[in-house]
This record gives sequence, C-alpha cells and structure tokens, in this order.
Amino acid sequence: MDWFIEYYNGSALMIKVRRKIFEHKGLQHIQIFDTVNFGKMLVLDGKIQLTERDEAFYHEMLVHPAMFMHEDPSKVLIIGGGDGGAVREILKHDPDEVVMVEIDRNVIEACRKYIGVDRGALDDERVSIINEDGVEFVRSAKEHFDVVVVDGTDPNPISQSLISKEFYSCCGKISDYFVTQSQSPFIQREYFEAILRNATFKERRIYIGFVPTYPMGLWSYLIGSNKRRIELDLEKIRDRFRERKVDTVYYTPEIHIAAFALPKWLEDVVKVLQGRE
Amino acid sequence: MDWFIEYYNGSALMIKVRRKIFEHKGLQHIQIFDTVNFGKMLVLDGKIQLTERDEAFYHEMLVHPAMFMHEDPSKVLIIGGGDGGAVREILKHDPDEVVMVEIDRNVIEACRKYIGVDRGALDDERVSIINEDGVEFVRSAKEHFDVVVVDGTDPNPISQSLISKEFYSCCGKISDYFVTQSQSPFIQREYFEAILRNATFKERRIYIGFVPTYPMGLWSYLIGSNKRRIELDLEKIRDRFRERKVDTVYYTPEIHIAAFALPKWLEDVVKVLQGRE
Repeated sequence: MDWFIEYYNGSALMIKVRRKIFEHKGLQHIQIFDTVNFGKMLVLDGKIQLTERDEAFYHEMLVHPAMFMHEDPSKVLIIGGGDGGAVREILKHDPDEVVMVEIDRNVIEACRKYIGVDRGALDDERVSIINEDGVEFVRSAKEHFDVVVVDGTDPNPISQSLISKEFYSCCGKISDYFVTQSQSPFIQREYFEAILRNATFKERRIYIGFVPTYPMGLWSYLIGSNKRRIELDLEKIRDRFRERKVDTVYYTPEIHIAAFALPKWLEDVVKVLQGRE
Repeated sequence: MDWFIEYYNGSALMIKVRRKIFEHKGLQHIQIFDTVNFGKMLVLDGKIQLTERDEAFYHEMLVHPAMFMHEDPSKVLIIGGGDGGAVREILKHDPDEVVMVEIDRNVIEACRKYIGVDRGALDDERVSIINEDGVEFVRSAKEHFDVVVVDGTDPNPISQSLISKEFYSCCGKISDYFVTQSQSPFIQREYFEAILRNATFKERRIYIGFVPTYPMGLWSYLIGSNKRRIELDLEKIRDRFRERKVDTVYYTPEIHIAAFALPKWLEDVVKVLQGRE
C-alpha cells in the first residue's frame, strides 16, 4: 500500500505510507501506519485520528483552553481519547485525578504499544481508565469534575450518542467547564450544526484551530458551562500558563484568545444556530 | 477525469471534478475545472490557485490587513493576481488607482471569461493592467504606492524572482506597506524560510489564515514596511472597517488581530530566522 486516502464531500486527503504497522477489526476498525512525512498515524473506521506530526495541534487546543479557564482543574473527566494525547496534555496541569472513559480498550492498547503519544500518561497513577460507554457513564455519574473533555471520533453508530442532547445535558450537570471537538464547520457542516444544536449550556463558545491532517485543516471546538463564565482574559491566562509551567508545541495564551475569533462566514453560521435555540 | 490531485511532501489533496472547462499551455499551464463541491477551480502548473468556495478566505487575508493598516490607501500595486480576486478586494477600499502587473495575460483572460471572481474589478476604470515581469516593473518604478500586494504562485522558474532579495528591496522602496503570501510554513517549510530570509524590512510580521484548498489548509502571509509601524490596534481597524463599509466573507477586524497570533512551533521558526538576519 502506497497511499492512505480519506474522503470528505468532494475532496480527499492522501497520506503517503511506508507500511501498515497494526490492524484490528473489533468494535472499531483500527489501523496504524508508518507514514513518509507525518510519523505514525492512527486511523479508526477509515478516518485519520492522529499523526505524530500534528496530533499536538489538536490535543493542545482541545485541552488547554478549558483547563486554563479553570483556576484549579484538579479533577478531570475525558470521554474517549484512547490514544492518550488528551490525558498527556491534561497532566501538564498537575491535576489530582483524571478519569478516562474509553469504550474501546483495543485503541488504548494499540496506541500504547505502537505509537506512544501518551508518553506514559496512560500509566500515570493519577489516571484511571474505565472501559464503558461515555453516555452510560455520565448518565449515572455522581461525582463532580472541574473539566470534562470529549475527545470522540466523527459521529458514527458508536459515537453518535456522544453528540446527543442527553449526553451534553448530563455533562453540563457534572462539570464546571465542558469541551468537545466539534468537527470541521467547513466541510462537515451537518456534524458541526448537530453538535451546536444539541450542546446547549448557559454559556458556550466555538473556537478553532489548524489540524492539517483533519478534513481540510480547519477544526472546531465547543466550550460550554452552566456554572462559570467563558471569559477571555489574556493576562489571567498568561499568569496561569507561567505558574503551571505548561510546555506546548502549538498552544500559547495568545493563540488561546485568537482561536475565538471566527471567520465571518462561521460567525454567521453560529449566530443563526444560536438564534434557533 | 474524476479527481484532480495536487501532491505536497508525502501528502496530497484530491478535488472531485465534473469536467475540465478550459486548458492552455503557454507561459504557464492553465487549467480551469468545474468541481463537485468547490465551484470552479483555477490550476496553474498543476497547483490549485483558487476555488470559488474558498478563494475569498485567501484574497481577503492577503489584502485587508495591509489595506486597513494604511489610513488612506489610494494608490495600490499588485504583482501577479491575474485571477482578479485581489483587485476585487482592494477596490472595496475605494482607492484612486490600482496598477496590476501580471506577466501572464492568458490567466487574466481565462479567469475573466470562465470564472469571474474579479466580479468586474478587472474592467474597473481605476485599474490598469500591465503585462510585464514584476521584478522588471519594481526595479524601474519611479512612482510611490501606499500598498504593494504580491499575489504570486508557488516559487517556480517564472515566479522564483518574486521571492528574491532584490525584488523585496525594490518593493520596500516604493511602498508604505508591503504584503505577500508566504506559502505553507507547515508543509512547504523551504519556501517559507526562503521568503522570510529574503524579505527584509525595517518592520515585518508573519500572519496566518485558513485556506482549505491550499496545502494542508494553513497559509501564511508576510507584511513589511520600511516607513510605517506594523501595529495591531483593534479599535483603529474597527473604525476603518466601519468607515470604509468593506463587505467580507472571512475577514473581520477581530480575525485581523487574531491572525498575528502564531502557533508556538511557528513562532519559534520565525524567531530563529529573524535571529539570522
């Protein structure tokens, strides 16, 4: 095999691969490739989840805005995120406890063994891993989390429930801050709109970032809260960034603020959908 | 033909096409396609120059930051830009005179006839089109321009001289503000670095934006000046944006400021190259 191809709505991204390192068909179809220019690459059900070259662009932007908005994120829940990239970033804030609810144990094992982007985070003693459906978990959760992070795949039969109204509502009840990746608003508008319609919080905002190996490079995230303000205070974020000594590849406090400035067309899409609530 | 493919360093973008509308092999190999999901698409020497779906993301970010930094951009020079998208955006600032120096007359004619993104701008009476090499033009130019915009293709035998020290130096002498697209710093690092090494100005900054159909979606621009400050004053830009009544698809004053916040890795690349000067 020479090229891996992922199609999306009249376009496709090709990534040149050297060889397939791992493949397993279970709950999801897991493939791990060694690529020519992007390091190792994880593919689930035909969709690129990460490459070593740009996974930090995604994981840092998923995790750090919500984590830095919280003054003391000591207890964090991740739904999904089996590759370990999100846990790795969360641990940089030195929390007391991280609970990761990942439905597919095979993803965790394959990533730990063949990619290792978690850099040991999955084995950290503060991290507990629960193999359960994310919706089931939050539905019955009694604990409170400072931050809840949803690191799911494109909506599909397994992850569809992770963009449901009930799921978001449960997450809102147990968290100070909630954040989820919200797909490409440019080339996957229907997913983006579904997430925005269902994820209702007292306050919420969309922000964006570059992830070159995700559909057409433009990725979005939704941050919401029923209890806290979503405020963009550069000085406060800079202070926390310095205090917590978080080392990054992509994220900076300035990028944090800048990510909330949306292109006019996207601002308009968000406004129309907010109006519909 | 089903798919158009553009390759870049171990990756490639595929765009599904309905049919080829136009083809001409002259100074450059010009192709125009009708695509399934991106409208009409211009390709020069195998590289996507624009699609109707996202050309405004590029042209607005190329033009408006420099135009809004200038208090009265009444005389503007464009080098390249034969498709007419940059002229269209410049005219929104109501300048007295726009000079466009485009070496390839065939690009202008083909775009005007088959795409029309200029929306009449190429025929505006304030616009004069000169069919000449950009370097030759600026070398002998006696006039002064408020803003000089370089809208060139990827460096190749024809456009290579548009990233030379001499070219940038001449542009710096005849302009208040200078701006050029500066390729993808993520996947075309060698081009980006060459531009940054050669484009020396008293002040200069890199900024970025999303262009989904350009290599991996992350695009960069270099703005420089020997005479003016490159200041990011949101209130001033907001005032000018309102006064000039500029209608946009992508650009907003907030996006203008946000575009100068660079991902950490890119900030580092720029710092290293600045240090080398």
